[in-house]
Amino acid sequence: MVSNTQVIFAKVPTTFPVAGEHMVVKKSEIDLDAEIPQGAILTKTLDLSVDPYMRGRMRDASVESYSPAFPLNQTMSGYVVAQVIKSNNSKFTVGDIVYGLGGYAEYVVTPEPYTALLTVRNDIKDSGLPVSNYLGVLGMPGMTAYVGLIKFGKPVKGETLYVSAASGAVGQLVGQIGARLGLRVVGSAGSDEKVDYLKELGFDAAFNYKTVDIQQALGEHCPNGIDIYFENVGGKMLQAVIDHANKFARIVCCGMISQYNTQNPEPIYNMMKVVSKSLEIRGFIVSDSPEMNEAFRRDVTEWLKTGEIKYREDIVEGIENTPEALIDVLRGKNFGKKVVHVADL
Amino acid sequence: MVSNTQVIFAKVPTTFPVAGEHMVVKKSEIDLDAEIPQGAILTKTLDLSVDPYMRGRMRDASVESYSPAFPLNQTMSGYVVAQVIKSNNSKFTVGDIVYGLGGYAEYVVTPEPYTALLTVRNDIKDSGLPVSNYLGVLGMPGMTAYVGLIKFGKPVKGETLYVSAASGAVGQLVGQIGARLGLRVVGSAGSDEKVDYLKELGFDAAFNYKTVDIQQALGEHCPNGIDIYFENVGGKMLQAVIDHANKFARIVCCGMISQYNTQNPEPIYNMMKVVSKSLEIRGFIVSDSPEMNEAFRRDVTEWLKTGEIKYREDIVEGIENTPEALIDVLRGKNFGKKVVHVADL
Ligand SMILES: NC(=O)c1ccc[n+]([C@@H]2O[C@H](COP(=O)([O-])OP(=O)(O)OC[C@H]3O[C@@H](n4cnc5c(N)ncnc54)[C@H](OP(=O)(O)O)[C@@H]3O)[C@@H](O)[C@H]2O)c1
Ligand SMILES: NC(=O)c1ccc[n+]([C@@H]2O[C@H](COP(=O)([O-])OP(=O)(O)OC[C@H]3O[C@@H](n4cnc5c(N)ncnc54)[C@H](OP(=O)(O)O)[C@@H]3O)[C@@H](O)[C@H]2O)c1
Repeated sequence: MVSNTQVIFAKVPTTFPVAGEHMVVKKSEIDLDAEIPQGAILTKTLDLSVDPYMRGRMRDASVESYSPAFPLNQTMSGYVVAQVIKSNNSKFTVGDIVYGLGGYAEYVVTPEPYTALLTVRNDIKDSGLPVSNYLGVLGMPGMTAYVGLIKFGKPVKGETLYVSAASGAVGQLVGQIGARLGLRVVGSAGSDEKVDYLKELGFDAAFNYKTVDIQQALGEHCPNGIDIYFENVGGKMLQAVIDHANKFARIVCCGMISQYNTQNPEPIYNMMKVVSKSLEIRGFIVSDSPEMNEAFRRDVTEWLKTGEIKYREDIVEGIENTPEALIDVLRGKNFGKKVVHVADL
Repeated sequence: MVSNTQVIFAKVPTTFPVAGEHMVVKKSEIDLDAEIPQGAILTKTLDLSVDPYMRGRMRDASVESYSPAFPLNQTMSGYVVAQVIKSNNSKFTVGDIVYGLGGYAEYVVTPEPYTALLTVRNDIKDSGLPVSNYLGVLGMPGMTAYVGLIKFGKPVKGETLYVSAASGAVGQLVGQIGARLGLRVVGSAGSDEKVDYLKELGFDAAFNYKTVDIQQALGEHCPNGIDIYFENVGGKMLQAVIDHANKFARIVCCGMISQYNTQNPEPIYNMMKVVSKSLEIRGFIVSDSPEMNEAFRRDVTEWLKTGEIKYREDIVEGIENTPEALIDVLRGKNFGKKVVHVADL
């Protein structure tokens, strides 16, 4: 028997979730020698990811949305990198590294059909890159940046790209890909340190949206208007961007984190400009663009290895800190991709 | 000397324009035998069009938008069909029928370079179709329906199309093209007579948005959700449609007439659904899609001649009624494409 810490979804929050109330850390024991069902695997979690979309899963199961609600009083799940330590499934071998959607516990027995949500990725062992990279720049958030900017942003050299939440898991990669494509890249973030980091990354301009007038800052930093907006935050930022958008601008709606923890969504008053400026506002979910997976992995792995792009991570030690880690992301207290380190490879 | 009635833009309205205040009818005289400048033409107006976008031109000239502001105290202009009665320009011959943007007067001298806004269209004389058709179903509004639905709606057989202002100049054609493409077509309009007309046209369902709960009506008449929304009105209708839109729905923003005469635009609160349902919201201006002109004219002329599509017009006699005619359109008092008949061919 070994100790096994799990993260439980305990209660549906109405605004910001609270650690210990909506998410509860539970310690139990697991017998690693016990039989596991036919088709199941037993994995040891190495790193796990906390991402803003998880807030959307913390809802009443009767409300439909693009990703399923977390069942109450059960282990939460999300993107993980884990190692197989027992297998009763011919697709997995002991020692394999897996990536995908898995349970948030130190040790997890995954039965069929949920094993299909995990893919063997032994390249993670051999790449020489940190495991955590595969939850950020080379994982779901990185793919989101790549798909959103390239497929939906339809960038044209010389255009102005504006990115909100620009120092985050998705945003920092969006800006760097934009710069590679010859765009003028402008970003905003919620602290002066984050803004400094954006400038280090090569953003042409960056500002702290909490300490300036957004309308004025957009006018100043995007003197030729905005051609592509990579939307991560929503609310008044979206409205301001619509005001500053050029004719035929693309507003790629990746997320609207400012609206995730409120019951009173912020209004948008200037939708008429969608007509008068022929704007395109397009929402997307990264998992609907699997055709770009291969190009994404190839390109971003290369850029990382050559040092052409940088990627900041914000790693917290210990699975028991998962609830606070997720709350930090929702409150903007993360600086870079937030990852929970659970165990070494 | 003959009498020449003109329509003058007299004052910038803040809400609904008022005839005699913001638009003034002026009688003057014109010498049809007088010399006209090199490059100019003198035309006699046959029919003129009043269209919602003209409200946007009734603004202070310092405000930029996609179509230029009307200059104060000058003749208004818009789509006309007219006949050349004098020409000092090699591109035009006396007797030619012209179509395009021209002055709102019985007789108009158009100097260069404005003659470029008029095209010789002697096919109008020979087609056997009423002149007024060329300001509606075969003119700018018809082209708007064709481009908006086909190019931006990206229709797929079996999908549900919802059209607002569906009995109007644009809407009635949108619905009929949709039906031809195998869509389930649902429309709304502002009176029971208009709704009856939509059913006559072959709409699968139609409702009077003024007498029902919009959310409930959309649920009832679009039981499989909305895949394409042809947006003519904006405001709370847009918000309701976003609630009822299917994943990957296209919201084609043609106009938002409910917002043209107010200084307090209606808010949209549910933009987060653009992300969660991967919606595409796309504004367009018809004049940006000239590549579709030929196909539009060919298809719609054929459908009209074979009787496959019907098109209702609302014709008012006499240029002096132009201000009221435009106001009627803005207030929903028109029933079908509003045209002002000025003189016979
Ligand atoms: N569509 C998809 O498939 C998909 C996939 C992944 C992520 N996303 C979305 O992409 C966005 C970024 O995700 P991420 O993983 O890269 O997270 P992240 O940027 O690493 O972390 C979230 C950041 O959002 C900012 N933020 C939080 N509350 C805010 C508020 N009220 N107003 C403005 N900014 C606020 C904070 O940065 P500041 O300090 O700069 O405010 C915070 O650090 C989120 O909206 C997420 O839902 C979408
Ligand atoms: N993007 C482009 O290039 C382009 C080109 C042409 C037209 N348009 C737009 O297309 C739309 C329709 O134009 P149209 O020429 O076909 O006009 P129309 O439908 O013939 O006439 C306007 C109609 O709008 C409806 N309406 C008026 N006020 C309203 C309100 N407050 N709420 C809801 N509906 C209202 C009325 O019908 P009900 O009785 O049914 O309410 C009215 O009859 C307009 O928004 C126009 O600006 C855009």
